[in-house]
Amino acid sequence: SINRFQVMSDAAQVNDSENHKLYDYHHNPPQEAPQRDTLYIAVDFDSVDLLDDALNTIETIGCNFLLFPLVKTQEFRDLRTNPDQEVPFVMYSDKLFNTSSWINQVVGKISTWIDLDSTDNNLRINSELAMKQEAAWSSHLSLPALLTPSPKTLQCSNMGKVLNQLLTPLSNLQFWVPIPVVSDSNPAEGKDPNDIIEDGANASWKTWDLLRTLCDHSKSLSVVLRLGLDVPSFKQFERWTAEPVKALILPVDIFLSDDHGFPTLSSPHQITIRHFLKHDVQLILTGHTDHPEGIGAYHQYLHELHRLSPAPSEQEQFEKPFHDFLQVPLQPLMDNLLSATYETFERDPIKYSQYDKAITVAFSDRFSSNEKGIVMVVGAGRGPLINCCLRACVYLQLDNIDVYAIEKNPNAVVTLKEMNIHRWNNKVKIISTDMRKWNTKIRADILISELLGSFGDNELSPECLDGAQKFLKDDSIVIPSSYTSYIAPVACQKLWMEAKGLNPNEEQKQLETAYVVKFHSFHQIAPSQKCFTFDHPSKTLDEGPQHNTRYSILKFHSVLNETIHGFSGYFDAVLYKNVTLSINPQTFSTGMFSWFPIYFPLRKPIRIPAKSTIEVHFWRNVSTQTNKVWYEWCISSPESTPIHNPNGRSYFIGL
Amino acid sequence: SINRFQVMSDAAQVNDSENHKLYDYHHNPPQEAPQRDTLYIAVDFDSVDLLDDALNTIETIGCNFLLFPLVKTQEFRDLRTNPDQEVPFVMYSDKLFNTSSWINQVVGKISTWIDLDSTDNNLRINSELAMKQEAAWSSHLSLPALLTPSPKTLQCSNMGKVLNQLLTPLSNLQFWVPIPVVSDSNPAEGKDPNDIIEDGANASWKTWDLLRTLCDHSKSLSVVLRLGLDVPSFKQFERWTAEPVKALILPVDIFLSDDHGFPTLSSPHQITIRHFLKHDVQLILTGHTDHPEGIGAYHQYLHELHRLSPAPSEQEQFEKPFHDFLQVPLQPLMDNLLSATYETFERDPIKYSQYDKAITVAFSDRFSSNEKGIVMVVGAGRGPLINCCLRACVYLQLDNIDVYAIEKNPNAVVTLKEMNIHRWNNKVKIISTDMRKWNTKIRADILISELLGSFGDNELSPECLDGAQKFLKDDSIVIPSSYTSYIAPVACQKLWMEAKGLNPNEEQKQLETAYVVKFHSFHQIAPSQKCFTFDHPSKTLDEGPQHNTRYSILKFHSVLNETIHGFSGYFDAVLYKNVTLSINPQTFSTGMFSWFPIYFPLRKPIRIPAKSTIEVHFWRNVSTQTNKVWYEWCISSPESTPIHNPNGRSYFIGL
Repeated sequence: SINRFQVMSDAAQVNDSENHKLYDYHHNPPQEAPQRDTLYIAVDFDSVDLLDDALNTIETIGCNFLLFPLVKTQEFRDLRTNPDQEVPFVMYSDKLFNTSSWINQVVGKISTWIDLDSTDNNLRINSELAMKQEAAWSSHLSLPALLTPSPKTLQCSNMGKVLNQLLTPLSNLQFWVPIPVVSDSNPAEGKDPNDIIEDGANASWKTWDLLRTLCDHSKSLSVVLRLGLDVPSFKQFERWTAEPVKALILPVDIFLSDDHGFPTLSSPHQITIRHFLKHDVQLILTGHTDHPEGIGAYHQYLHELHRLSPAPSEQEQFEKPFHDFLQVPLQPLMDNLLSATYETFERDPIKYSQYDKAITVAFSDRFSSNEKGIVMVVGAGRGPLINCCLRACVYLQLDNIDVYAIEKNPNAVVTLKEMNIHRWNNKVKIISTDMRKWNTKIRADILISELLGSFGDNELSPECLDGAQKFLKDDSIVIPSSYTSYIAPVACQKLWMEAKGLNPNEEQKQLETAYVVKFHSFHQIAPSQKCFTFDHPSKTLDEGPQHNTRYSILKFHSVLNETIHGFSGYFDAVLYKNVTLSINPQTFSTGMFSWFPIYFPLRKPIRIPAKSTIEVHFWRNVSTQTNKVWYEWCISSPESTPIHNPNGRSYFIGL
Repeated sequence: SINRFQVMSDAAQVNDSENHKLYDYHHNPPQEAPQRDTLYIAVDFDSVDLLDDALNTIETIGCNFLLFPLVKTQEFRDLRTNPDQEVPFVMYSDKLFNTSSWINQVVGKISTWIDLDSTDNNLRINSELAMKQEAAWSSHLSLPALLTPSPKTLQCSNMGKVLNQLLTPLSNLQFWVPIPVVSDSNPAEGKDPNDIIEDGANASWKTWDLLRTLCDHSKSLSVVLRLGLDVPSFKQFERWTAEPVKALILPVDIFLSDDHGFPTLSSPHQITIRHFLKHDVQLILTGHTDHPEGIGAYHQYLHELHRLSPAPSEQEQFEKPFHDFLQVPLQPLMDNLLSATYETFERDPIKYSQYDKAITVAFSDRFSSNEKGIVMVVGAGRGPLINCCLRACVYLQLDNIDVYAIEKNPNAVVTLKEMNIHRWNNKVKIISTDMRKWNTKIRADILISELLGSFGDNELSPECLDGAQKFLKDDSIVIPSSYTSYIAPVACQKLWMEAKGLNPNEEQKQLETAYVVKFHSFHQIAPSQKCFTFDHPSKTLDEGPQHNTRYSILKFHSVLNETIHGFSGYFDAVLYKNVTLSINPQTFSTGMFSWFPIYFPLRKPIRIPAKSTIEVHFWRNVSTQTNKVWYEWCISSPESTPIHNPNGRSYFIGL
């Protein structure tokens, strides 16, 4: 049946871009999220003999789509003077397939003689005319994508110019650019920076980087990687993970034979394919085979490879729909959280088991049985930390502890009151107010909160806890006692294009906003580094609200040539003594899913040479006049960007 | 009188930017063009003692404006906790000067203790608060500009952040950033590229380059250069010519004493000051003097220096109002030229004397007396080339030459007919038609035109002459016989900001459009190189309209660190044999004013390291479907820009 077969294409998304909705963080994942682990396999019909039988063949094999030349002859056409080279004389009939097949199953192959960067003027000009002729014809047929000829290494400016002209918003054309994945005999790291530039793997990436920059990072331009007999080490081509890779081209001659004469692949090839299958990458079989079962044998092997891949873990399963899915960070201070959001939070097993540990140790340090004690949970929400406190009291046999729940969201207070009656024996004192506004003479021995965002302080934990500090005694314990945010430079072309394209009229705003996102197709260029730290109770409260401003200068080091699309942000927190939480990759609390990282984009991607120092500046700003907290950021070296988000013009957190 | 004194400020222009009109090329210069050679001198009142008398002093001296501290104490203020550091307690009274003086004569000096990039947190945070406090106060007073503290060399990111916040569209603040002009003991050229970076002159420029990039090239951020005892060679600081330099700061201790004890300056200082006076730069005297006549003596010397500067030539006089003044290139094929435009063209003495020479030599090569001959002037306009032809006939005593004037603009034909009756004895045959459409069996011996634009082919001379080629015999002479365009990379911050700011809603369009402009505040980074050449009669006409497309790859070499803002374009033409016209700087036809260069901007300025190769691509595109000719351009190395103007989306020439 035809409907099974469909090229995975961005065309629909591109058409739909104005309707693309930015979801709030912690909402349910989008219903329309694609099933990402489906295997899509295509066959490249470069042999003209097979054409008549093409569709039959792929249906028999079970392939999803095919690559198909548009023009009957693969020879040079002189379009400058020959009227018999016009569309009606050279193209395959549009009756060859039915309309639905053209639209869903056929990726057009641009004639391979086309050489847009030829130094022969006549060849170049005819190439340009032929390319435009074939693109126009494929538009007419509504093909989902076009495979271009391979660009010449670092000499593809004229190819860029022609593609850029064809990539108009109206054309709806999708181009796939084939780039060979070359293995370097000498790994890049050991060499002089000037030598790196000449490396094959590096040259491949730089060719693509040049081409997509020339085309102004068009969302309709993708790359397909052609594997060879040797697969480079993962280190050598991990940059590709950040790029819009649509497919891997697998020539049949990279396959080996197993004992039964069936096709098989070397272990490095298998690892590469499995890695890219996790990134929505389709597979394209190409080349002539003498195998008695034909191309079907290779197809069968790939299906087997896919079937035998390890099943995703529960966390991977949970996170999959959120991969590279941009969400607006929460603003729990300005907006009241929804019940469903509380629910998602409360479901995290790791986070609350860490709080259990921290609270139990703190209680045992502070309280002895029968002695009176006061504990306040500020921002109690629907009560998960109250549960932790009550569990600790039971465990330590403490009978004389007053537990306060302070919460500003009146809707959550409803739940707290319910819980108090039905679960807590009315032992909890519920205060329905903003912790910054509560006037009381009661002083807490222990103050507990969970106000942290993906970037630590970004949900204004410091400002809230400043307000609660007046409830403290001189020697009170605060949980968490400190938290630190982390920053790392990242390459993430797909994500950056996503952010840029959210609303075509607000590009600047969208590229100066922080997003919560589960990074997937990305490449972290250097290990994360500490950005801002906050300690509680604060010792600088008497310096006024500006004591929560921060300024951090970080220096990262690039190994390869890179393009930076922004920064990934993380945090870790010390709850009490050695009990911690972390979403920083180096120290990640395995199994915890409450926080995805944060993404700070750059307005323009920046090219970074190999082995350079990237100097990054981050500011946390506080204005009590406008009741805003916001971040600004920039790169100052090796080249400078504008400072992003001045005065919080595009993105701020309301106090 | 107060009105004489006024800081030359961009404030008015900034307010007015929406009304800024882009003039068509060859219109009369703008009436409101400022008198650019006026001398503006300020005195820096850094001594608080003088304050009460300040205005009196500058009126007595004859100065134009003064630099004035805003805050009574120049000592550190702790604004984080001290309410007695609020505006009402620290600022000079707004009654010190009257309103008109504040608005026209006072540049505010931000407190010099302010150190926005201090590693001492308390000093940095207080610096930020103090800077904002002083900026807010100067807004309140409507001062024309504020002098900032000097940025720390290459460590001024936080200063950038604060300035960037203050430079909102609403604030209307103008900041002047003082940068010392440092002389290098070893000239940059002889050194290793890595050493150049550490040079003083280079570090000064890089500090400014960093700061203005961080501030996103704000039009309200300018630089003032502080001269020292040693002045660097012109080569070392010619990059500053491309920057928005508002003033030179002249400390009194850089002056020498002449025989009578009066202040004087060394010859390098004089050359520097004269150079910058040609670029709207104001002078600021600073420092304490023991001279018996006080600061007035220095002021008098500067006036004398200015008075004794050589008077501008006639051509300089003519061009002055056009300096850095962006104009839309002519489109004589789509639009009919105005009478005034023809008039400006006809006034050029050099151009037509070159045509006289070329025509006379061609006539004498081709015709002998009494023999019949046919000459066609295509695009005859109001007839200047007809005059050349008739003069040549008289000079060579040729009586039997038929002169045809072919012109598509019916308004110009009216003038031609008038001329024929009153000046040419009805000897000229006037054909009122587009040369591309005239069907005739007459064949010309000599075809003459003047269809060239600033970039040679940019007024579609190639396409027009293709249409006229059918009037030729096999051995006809065409004047001009060839023309070549030239391209050079330029730094021109002021001009780029001008183009960017023409219409805030069409930034992309404005930065993908070519402008005709008399470059003034600019720095050509490398010598120009040949771009496109056209020969007539064309030998490739049978290749169809695409034979006029061109693609050129040029490689330029940078000496210093540079920021490229686009390309200057020029042309030269061979009229006949060795008779040429040129606006290419290397071969400029002195005295010719018909063509100003063309400017191709870049959407974002690109930083180029010292001693790099800049690879530039230019395309000339022709579409007969849309009747358009357009250019596209990009840089592909050392880093890549997007290709500008795809499909002529922002700028094209109509066929």
